Amino acid sequence: MTQFQSVKAETGETFGDPIAVNDVSDVAVACQKAQDAFDVYRATTREDRAAFLEDIADQIMAIGDALVDAATSESGLPTARIEGERGRTCGQLRMFAGVVRRGGWQQLRIDPAMPDRSPLPRPDLRLRMVPLGPVAVFGASNFPIAFSTAGGDTASALAAGCPVVVKGHPAHPQTGALVADAIAKAVRNAGLPEGVFQHLVGPSNELGAALVQDPRIAAVGFTGSRAGGLALQSLAQKREVPIPVYAEMSSINPVLLLPHALKDKGAALGTAFVGSLTMGAGQFCTNPGLVLAIEGEGLDAFIDAAQTAVKDAAPQTMLTPNIRDAYGKAVDTLSQCDGVEEIAKGDEGDKTHGGAAVFQTAGDKFLSDKSLQAEMFGSASLIVRCKDEDELVRIIDSLEGQLTATLHMDDADAAIAGRMIPHLERRVGRILANGWPTGVEVGHAMVHGGPYPSTTDARMTSVGSLAIDRYLRPVSYQNIPQDLLPPELRDANAGDGVPRLVDGEPA
Amino acid sequence: MTQFQSVKAETGETFGDPIAVNDVSDVAVACQKAQDAFDVYRATTREDRAAFLEDIADQIMAIGDALVDAATSESGLPTARIEGERGRTCGQLRMFAGVVRRGGWQQLRIDPAMPDRSPLPRPDLRLRMVPLGPVAVFGASNFPIAFSTAGGDTASALAAGCPVVVKGHPAHPQTGALVADAIAKAVRNAGLPEGVFQHLVGPSNELGAALVQDPRIAAVGFTGSRAGGLALQSLAQKREVPIPVYAEMSSINPVLLLPHALKDKGAALGTAFVGSLTMGAGQFCTNPGLVLAIEGEGLDAFIDAAQTAVKDAAPQTMLTPNIRDAYGKAVDTLSQCDGVEEIAKGDEGDKTHGGAAVFQTAGDKFLSDKSLQAEMFGSASLIVRCKDEDELVRIIDSLEGQLTATLHMDDADAAIAGRMIPHLERRVGRILANGWPTGVEVGHAMVHGGPYPSTTDARMTSVGSLAIDRYLRPVSYQNIPQDLLPPELRDANAGDGVPRLVDGEPA
Repeated sequence: MTQFQSVKAETGETFGDPIAVNDVSDVAVACQKAQDAFDVYRATTREDRAAFLEDIADQIMAIGDALVDAATSESGLPTARIEGERGRTCGQLRMFAGVVRRGGWQQLRIDPAMPDRSPLPRPDLRLRMVPLGPVAVFGASNFPIAFSTAGGDTASALAAGCPVVVKGHPAHPQTGALVADAIAKAVRNAGLPEGVFQHLVGPSNELGAALVQDPRIAAVGFTGSRAGGLALQSLAQKREVPIPVYAEMSSINPVLLLPHALKDKGAALGTAFVGSLTMGAGQFCTNPGLVLAIEGEGLDAFIDAAQTAVKDAAPQTMLTPNIRDAYGKAVDTLSQCDGVEEIAKGDEGDKTHGGAAVFQTAGDKFLSDKSLQAEMFGSASLIVRCKDEDELVRIIDSLEGQLTATLHMDDADAAIAGRMIPHLERRVGRILANGWPTGVEVGHAMVHGGPYPSTTDARMTSVGSLAIDRYLRPVSYQNIPQDLLPPELRDANAGDGVPRLVDGEPA
Repeated sequence: MTQFQSVKAETGETFGDPIAVNDVSDVAVACQKAQDAFDVYRATTREDRAAFLEDIADQIMAIGDALVDAATSESGLPTARIEGERGRTCGQLRMFAGVVRRGGWQQLRIDPAMPDRSPLPRPDLRLRMVPLGPVAVFGASNFPIAFSTAGGDTASALAAGCPVVVKGHPAHPQTGALVADAIAKAVRNAGLPEGVFQHLVGPSNELGAALVQDPRIAAVGFTGSRAGGLALQSLAQKREVPIPVYAEMSSINPVLLLPHALKDKGAALGTAFVGSLTMGAGQFCTNPGLVLAIEGEGLDAFIDAAQTAVKDAAPQTMLTPNIRDAYGKAVDTLSQCDGVEEIAKGDEGDKTHGGAAVFQTAGDKFLSDKSLQAEMFGSASLIVRCKDEDELVRIIDSLEGQLTATLHMDDADAAIAGRMIPHLERRVGRILANGWPTGVEVGHAMVHGGPYPSTTDARMTSVGSLAIDRYLRPVSYQNIPQDLLPPELRDANAGDGVPRLVDGEPA
């Protein structure tokens, strides 16, 4: 195949100009360019790199309506959502510009020499973080702008000083091409080598596999399915030089309805739950796919309200036919599972659409059947009726790693919430109270990550400013003459406002 | 086997009381105890945890001469070295106590709520680092105290709040048992559960394999051979839940003799080089196993001086018969390699001893034969004669990842050093000037790590205060009521002296 076309999510029809497909030989060329650009790019000043990130944001905004049109057509997501996503993407780039300027990510540390120390003198030691090298980024289908070509992986890798080679998602090639052009323009505006950012497209898995296996690639950022993430991880581990893969894969995001909250506002929670569940056709990594509640007052009201809301929910366009099919199969499988009862199914619409579905089961059944933890990517969820607090704890302890956990609680639930939090901390990357896990704030204190298999690396986040750490490693300089030190570690730059630890103390 | 005995490195004879061997069933018991102790231990206050680390240091010192006697007998290392190592170990524990008290490792971040933000309010988000869980530590043979039972892996994991299960190195079981008893005493003194620290011993690999495979183990720290590290890494990756393995494995630590320095002091450098090479019978991860120099004045003087020093070097006791045999084979293999010339071999002594050996080869030969990069664990080194600066760069670019690189340079070498440093930064974890890589300072700005295969994870260090990061991961708390937040993230504790980022700015 040398060309392919966009598919309109709403109708399943192809549209637009044919798009040239990159083949595996293009991967080596792109990676060599990225490698050649690495030393130039990583040597940019903090100000120049920050201004470059801001210019990317400006260039994305300058695309105008063409970007919104392409993304809504290709994804089936509504205009307001896509405009919000564009704002998020640009905000994220500007946030990383600020992070680059402040410079704390360099983790500067200086242990001054002690020439008179006995029995041995202490050398002068200075440490900074350096970028890993060219990064391969795999965009996600469900956020065609914010987790794709110029999404969090690209923004954080560029912020760290790493050239980026994007494998564009074949579900939104027009959107990807527009954004890639905007970034390329910012690269030219900054006078940087074009290897700083490159974009490869094509529907085959071979292209992505070749990218991860290229010896010049130093790390991988991925958002998508568990199967996809684990396949890339496996390829990366089998390389002559294994590299880190940051794959954000799957999560069912348990929502705990604590007893007093459930009793006080069961019906309202049930309605709000379905609102979160059906947002964006449920195609969020943080979709509430699991509800945990102790039997008692309020749970029936919650379920009644959820049932009504699901029946009222309109079918929604799903991102791709594959996602629609996988969703349908997952819901069918759960429907046929002994001990699992359907509470409600919404209108499924036509073949490009998906409907909401909610099920329930008992705590002991959930504990005995690991398959009930499988993610159903779409607006389906399972309510688990726990017989008591101890069973709730056992269920939490039995969960696979998750991106989030949510507590719905009143003041009177403080004791049980306090009991749950240490268990949740060991299972998830973000714990939230009295909200819904969909909606991931881009900030400094966000963790969008979590224990395996929600991600391949629980030590990292793919959203928020801490995401820059994924693409950095420390280097120590011992007794290196001042003029040969990286500028930020020289004595003369002690007053430039970048935080330093001197002998372990902020200075 | 249910018992085994220490071997005196100097003579190869067994000595001391029989030592009970742990079997695989003990692993599950120990890991369950570690798991049970985790929540109690991680909830300790910073002050209590710091005081506990300091007490471990005190208890190790309180063992007195018995520890020095055991370690010198088992390792064959001299008393002064072992006493230094003990001091280093206790200093390291005290350093981590200071790190724990200062609290910066928690990476506290707060993004305050913005209830009036449009179009959506911003939630209150707070982030801290939490410990990963029980850590398995594999001690190294070459530092029976400082990289073993209470070495850097144990100290940093305990500092992070992780219980530790040590697989003691079978080459120094008496030393390990004495140190383990000292730590156990500190655990009791602090009123902590005994699962906070446990010590398993035995000569079989099955014991360590079972430990890495136990589902309760959350991370692994290892210092040793490449074969050993990669075997553990492979086991860890095949688990149902893969875990990080921090293996510090092998390095040949290139030493660059830059032209002016070589011309000015070639002979002095040659003598000093052999001093570093033969220290501790060359049994250091940072041993200078590779010397790179451009043909020219001074290189012959360097080689002549090195030749004399090698011939004068006395044979030294090696740590174990296996290490002695592997060293002998590595030297024989290199001796028989076409295009490699022996410069000098020192007296090899008897079967428990190893002698120094230095070889030379041409740059193009080195570039064409990857096997010349194999580590020879012991006091052997290869000098590569490069025809010019460009060949030197090509050789650096061809190197496997290394822990260190050293520049010997004069002021007049600044230009060539400046050209080399960016290449070295991509290959190594520490760059030093006008010293020798042996001798790894324990401090805040040290990196004892480097690109694969010097370690399995270039993003981390196994020595220095940054090593604590290996055992931590971030958790974010969204709209969690103040009383349920971890104390360090509550508003009321803003003034407790622990650094926080508020909206990304130090506050």
